[in-house]
Amino acid sequence: MSKQKVVLAYSGGLDTSVILKWLLEQGYEVFAYMADIGQQEDFDAAREKALKIGASDVFIEDMRKEFVTDYIFPVFKANALYEGRYLLGTAIARPLIAKKQIEIANNLGAAYVSHGATGKGNDQVRFELSYYALNPKIKIISPWKNKDFLAAFKGRTDLLAYAEKHGIPTKQTASKPYSEDDNLLHISHEAGILEDPAHECEESIYSHTTSPENAPDTPVRIRIRFRDGIPVEVENLTDGTVKTDALELFEYLNQMGSEHGIGRLDMVENRFVGIKSRGVYETPGGSILHAAHKDIEGVAMDREVMRLRDMLAAKLGELVYNGFWFSPEMEFIMAAMDKSQELIDGDVFLKLYKGTAYPVARTSPSSLYNQELSSMDIEGGYNQEDAEGFIRINAIRLMAHRRIVNQ
Amino acid sequence: MSKQKVVLAYSGGLDTSVILKWLLEQGYEVFAYMADIGQQEDFDAAREKALKIGASDVFIEDMRKEFVTDYIFPVFKANALYEGRYLLGTAIARPLIAKKQIEIANNLGAAYVSHGATGKGNDQVRFELSYYALNPKIKIISPWKNKDFLAAFKGRTDLLAYAEKHGIPTKQTASKPYSEDDNLLHISHEAGILEDPAHECEESIYSHTTSPENAPDTPVRIRIRFRDGIPVEVENLTDGTVKTDALELFEYLNQMGSEHGIGRLDMVENRFVGIKSRGVYETPGGSILHAAHKDIEGVAMDREVMRLRDMLAAKLGELVYNGFWFSPEMEFIMAAMDKSQELIDGDVFLKLYKGTAYPVARTSPSSLYNQELSSMDIEGGYNQEDAEGFIRINAIRLMAHRRIVNQ
Amino acid sequence: MSKQKVVLAYSGGLDTSVILKWLLEQGYEVFAYMADIGQQEDFDAAREKALKIGASDVFIEDMRKEFVTDYIFPVFKANALYEGRYLLGTAIARPLIAKKQIEIANNLGAAYVSHGATGKGNDQVRFELSYYALNPKIKIISPWKNKDFLAAFKGRTDLLAYAEKHGIPTKQTASKPYSEDDNLLHISHEAGILEDPAHECEESIYSHTTSPENAPDTPVRIRIRFRDGIPVEVENLTDGTVKTDALELFEYLNQMGSEHGIGRLDMVENRFVGIKSRGVYETPGGSILHAAHKDIEGVAMDREVMRLRDMLAAKLGELVYNGFWFSPEMEFIMAAMDKSQELIDGDVFLKLYKGTAYPVARTSPSSLYNQELSSMDIEGGYNQEDAEGFIRINAIRLMAHRRIVNQ
Amino acid sequence: MSKQKVVLAYSGGLDTSVILKWLLEQGYEVFAYMADIGQQEDFDAAREKALKIGASDVFIEDMRKEFVTDYIFPVFKANALYEGRYLLGTAIARPLIAKKQIEIANNLGAAYVSHGATGKGNDQVRFELSYYALNPKIKIISPWKNKDFLAAFKGRTDLLAYAEKHGIPTKQTASKPYSEDDNLLHISHEAGILEDPAHECEESIYSHTTSPENAPDTPVRIRIRFRDGIPVEVENLTDGTVKTDALELFEYLNQMGSEHGIGRLDMVENRFVGIKSRGVYETPGGSILHAAHKDIEGVAMDREVMRLRDMLAAKLGELVYNGFWFSPEMEFIMAAMDKSQELIDGDVFLKLYKGTAYPVARTSPSSLYNQELSSMDIEGGYNQEDAEGFIRINAIRLMAHRRIVNQ
Repeated sequence: MSKQKVVLAYSGGLDTSVILKWLLEQGYEVFAYMADIGQQEDFDAAREKALKIGASDVFIEDMRKEFVTDYIFPVFKANALYEGRYLLGTAIARPLIAKKQIEIANNLGAAYVSHGATGKGNDQVRFELSYYALNPKIKIISPWKNKDFLAAFKGRTDLLAYAEKHGIPTKQTASKPYSEDDNLLHISHEAGILEDPAHECEESIYSHTTSPENAPDTPVRIRIRFRDGIPVEVENLTDGTVKTDALELFEYLNQMGSEHGIGRLDMVENRFVGIKSRGVYETPGGSILHAAHKDIEGVAMDREVMRLRDMLAAKLGELVYNGFWFSPEMEFIMAAMDKSQELIDGDVFLKLYKGTAYPVARTSPSSLYNQELSSMDIEGGYNQEDAEGFIRINAIRLMAHRRIVNQ
Repeated sequence: MSKQKVVLAYSGGLDTSVILKWLLEQGYEVFAYMADIGQQEDFDAAREKALKIGASDVFIEDMRKEFVTDYIFPVFKANALYEGRYLLGTAIARPLIAKKQIEIANNLGAAYVSHGATGKGNDQVRFELSYYALNPKIKIISPWKNKDFLAAFKGRTDLLAYAEKHGIPTKQTASKPYSEDDNLLHISHEAGILEDPAHECEESIYSHTTSPENAPDTPVRIRIRFRDGIPVEVENLTDGTVKTDALELFEYLNQMGSEHGIGRLDMVENRFVGIKSRGVYETPGGSILHAAHKDIEGVAMDREVMRLRDMLAAKLGELVYNGFWFSPEMEFIMAAMDKSQELIDGDVFLKLYKGTAYPVARTSPSSLYNQELSSMDIEGGYNQEDAEGFIRINAIRLMAHRRIVNQ
Repeated sequence: MSKQKVVLAYSGGLDTSVILKWLLEQGYEVFAYMADIGQQEDFDAAREKALKIGASDVFIEDMRKEFVTDYIFPVFKANALYEGRYLLGTAIARPLIAKKQIEIANNLGAAYVSHGATGKGNDQVRFELSYYALNPKIKIISPWKNKDFLAAFKGRTDLLAYAEKHGIPTKQTASKPYSEDDNLLHISHEAGILEDPAHECEESIYSHTTSPENAPDTPVRIRIRFRDGIPVEVENLTDGTVKTDALELFEYLNQMGSEHGIGRLDMVENRFVGIKSRGVYETPGGSILHAAHKDIEGVAMDREVMRLRDMLAAKLGELVYNGFWFSPEMEFIMAAMDKSQELIDGDVFLKLYKGTAYPVARTSPSSLYNQELSSMDIEGGYNQEDAEGFIRINAIRLMAHRRIVNQ
Repeated sequence: MSKQKVVLAYSGGLDTSVILKWLLEQGYEVFAYMADIGQQEDFDAAREKALKIGASDVFIEDMRKEFVTDYIFPVFKANALYEGRYLLGTAIARPLIAKKQIEIANNLGAAYVSHGATGKGNDQVRFELSYYALNPKIKIISPWKNKDFLAAFKGRTDLLAYAEKHGIPTKQTASKPYSEDDNLLHISHEAGILEDPAHECEESIYSHTTSPENAPDTPVRIRIRFRDGIPVEVENLTDGTVKTDALELFEYLNQMGSEHGIGRLDMVENRFVGIKSRGVYETPGGSILHAAHKDIEGVAMDREVMRLRDMLAAKLGELVYNGFWFSPEMEFIMAAMDKSQELIDGDVFLKLYKGTAYPVARTSPSSLYNQELSSMDIEGGYNQEDAEGFIRINAIRLMAHRRIVNQ
């Protein structure tokens, strides 16, 4: 009887290399799969390593553009944040990785998928909910929740010993005393020495941004053009550089943000599994984009739409963070989000300087801002006396309440 | 028959001086009232001026401490923002001003109150809703919504001419080509040359903050201690300065924020009267406090409380902005907010540097953060296998949905 | 110079007949417009009357089908209620009436529209917000908010005297001592003798429903089929009657509901203008439809979509009630609502008996209900041990909270 | 070494009797615990049975009054429903049962608690979340999620065989082909023959209510008085019966509701564990109370408080249903709910007739209803012209939107 096939989300690192070997030992035929979503990685070396360990094949998929257009931009047009601060850099990437993994499994006729996420974190949830949602028949091997695996590998030492024993190459350099996840949108640093939230994150840990202190002493000004809430053009107003391709544009925002120390965040957040966790994030381009998008909405979005959207945006942030990307409630929310962005067009001008992107001016062809109406000096079609009635009608129930309280 | 008494919210400036005189001409006995909420003002000169114009009396009330403890802190412990950005500096002050004005009117047996807010803005609503809510029988004279007054005063020139005619002193210096409102919490700049949202606000307009560019090249570190969500101690970790009195503490945060260029905001917002408006704000101490409070909640607030609180915080921001401070819905929300803060205790450490307050560390006696539980390396009472069941149960309805969609 | 044209929403009754004449006296050319949305009315007599009074033309528009398909069904597929009880019978009709009125005005080149709604109610708001939203340049003549008109007509006696003076025919029969509004969806009774909420509404006031006491002693059973949340077929399971045309189907539901005393409601509600008001409503077919639609969603709608939808449904109820039908926020909500109904298909079986429509059974081709999974006796692919992990993970933050509270 | 103690939630039925014996066989010392929350039960017989099987002691606690005052009334004053329909009869009782069980365990020094709820339902979650929340150190034995137990007991036959083998008395009468849970608030029927949602529930299954068809042909009228949102007096207006004690009052509402066929509900709902489930409920007194409470709020609750409360009520319904009674978010919500009810006082008059409780009149000392203000005939301090300004201000953003859409 032929072996069961499993598609493993492979990173090239120690953990998933050990898992690859362990799966082979369990009698599976293993296919390694790597998603290129912009992380720093030597994909060729990783391919070679996986094959050497025993993978039947290695699939390396360049999904950077899809990541930007179908994952990052939709979430940013909804202004989604997790717990009011985190720009969801890891969370947005997981469903995309899972989607391609399921596609590969389906194509190979593999009944199993596997990943190396731990049993305490969010990523296991994001991967597995996506797997189940896309293929309810899929079977998941999650070694870090597997009794035998957990018994065999109690710590890094066990992994290293196992690697050595099986001839799995391990990097010469010492491992970082914390863990990281990076992609086009961000890099996260957590665990290890960062676990104490009272301990300030050292400068050396940051890798995707210059420190604000070391950022240029002169601000740079850029312009971002939006159409339907999506950035379609970025211009550096200092040197005239223009980017219009989605991927190039986003990479350019990353470059600008990185240079000017923009997008650092150190916070304690709530994982879906009920544990509080301390994360340090760098989201250079995303932070600029978020600030710019909120700003263009200031002129182009109706007030009441904004109220409702903001309520759903908070919910969307939760869904994405918790791993419910492929869910009916996500579709429900995105239908409204798409509608909300139909007129979100225009240019935002930002000053980038030492850690912050400051929106300083904006224009929009669909601006709801009316200078005459707004002006305190010009009547502009607004009848001040209307305000009297407006206020008095609004006061009726307040007066009724007061009469009862005072009686 | 004796004259009707009116209590006028007086600023000492041209508009309310003209209004004072105009009210006298209409046959009222006028009492001028000035609320000291930390704005830059020569109160003695203003008193003299009001008396000279003809006020029967001038009431100057120092409400700075009450402003901090009963208005600013409750809103900041709720993390309220308007439209995700504005810290409500003007809005929070209005109900306090109105409350004291109604008290004075009640004490004097005055049937009327009056104010100089325009008919297009938010402040008229905030003042008048507060007046009506506190005294449903009060009568309001709002000259900028009065047909006769509007006919007589079409612009600044008419005001100046009237002032000259009636011997009302006007400042020698040219008026600023935009309007401002300042208090302990913030200063706003709007209207006039700021009305074009495509026009970047000039550096010269900012008055409460050093520009980030001119802020010190060396960060300063501070510590803010919270008890029940309220700041009770601020320490400058560089020079050891400590403040514990509410007013002094808040003024010290203002000083620190101002020095480091923190709290500038330029946005287009939605007024309650349906008009979009561009505002430029400086909220130095408030911006630091907001960042610190969110951070301490990260460790000390339950996740689901945070979800509900955030939903109500958005609503609270609207209520405060729109002038519904004295309303039953405000009491409803604050009852929940008070409950949410009962365990929000601890210290937040912040780095202040060129425009931004970065929370970098935090400790809390009521911390819900559990390093062992959070750690990826230690089991700490958490059973990884539980996560498997957790995920599978969460996936059930996603799988059911997929089966229907795929059928 | 030619006269200004005004399109008047005409009812054929005393008020709008007087208004028609009054408008003519003010020098306008008046076009009468009547929307047939299913109310009981002798349209031919009304036409004759309007022409006799002096209308240049009378437009009578049969909008019953559009009312059902484009106004009633979309609101019912969203389960919208106002204040948890009112099925919005009057509110849903107003924007449709206004829309056609604006179309007629635009076609005629009329700069003015007029209506007979009072200055204290909701209908004025619904009409006028719709007018403004559809044609920002329109001018509105609202006699019941007009000083001169109000001065001339202080009560019914003045209206009758004016009518007699100008030869406007008035009904011989005494007017009802309360006011009513009826259409295909409902009839409302309010004001007059109903103003005292402590006074029980007399049986004689109800006109669209048999009293539950007089309804048949034998229940009838019907089946309603939904597609995409819209009823597409009604079958009387007793006599086999089947209706599939939207208008006929809804009229049949009305007939069934009316016969069985279904859809009466007596409540005190909150008008948009800040006043509490007592209304008595009869919504026979709508009440059946509402119950059936909620029931089919029970089997076919995802849980989390239902949570979000319910939140937006409450908001939608407010919007419709307050007159914001033609608003960007309405479009925002409806985009999500449409998405939520894509799989809401199936049959609901109801028992109609003495005042209530009881859903008693349901089937759906897109049912998410899984008898095996649900069964307490069969495993059905559900692993009970998963629940252990699910519960333990959910308990983590509760335990953390307890530890802090107990410390 | 002494045996470990376990406190078992005992019902006297087959399942928990078998569990009792099974726990003894596992080597535990077992204490049986029965909560009297108004269910039909022969507690003396059950006590004897438990002792006979081998329980060390049996605790029978009369918690009916606490159930009414501390569990039912708080939820009903919040108007909480689950999925818009279910009055939470089972869900509300679970935390109370769990609370006393933990108290007994703590008093006995027992490290374990146990219950007989299945692994697919909501009750296991409600019990266990309550246990963990009240005592984070508690250990839970949940046989229906235990591999060995599940292997030994695959169905009712196994349970019966085991009972016979161990001399556990089983009822002579055949078991019902569905399961039930009853208490003071309601009885639920589910599972077994009710699992097919297309199968109408037979009349014989209902046990707490007369069928509407068999209910009296003459309505009865009652009056319920509320103070702070809590019912404090019920009067039968036909025969003059008056009840003021909380427990007696609620039992009387049950009696009235039962007699008149009120409170039946047949629905498909969403369990917390992700499964859809069909439930048939009878909640006679609760249904009357719910209708009455909504009605008194109509006159006494502020509109905007109602909006916010309704949003939180939906959330509260979820929390109670899902078992999060002892949670910080529950405390958060209840703080606001308490505030909302401070002025909810007055009398509601209801007609009870064949299945429905119709509120027909209401009076309140804190009524916000103002007949003069509401009247269409009397001005009553309301200036109709104010409505003009109110509408025009509300229309501003709609007009701005239209101009953009039309451009």
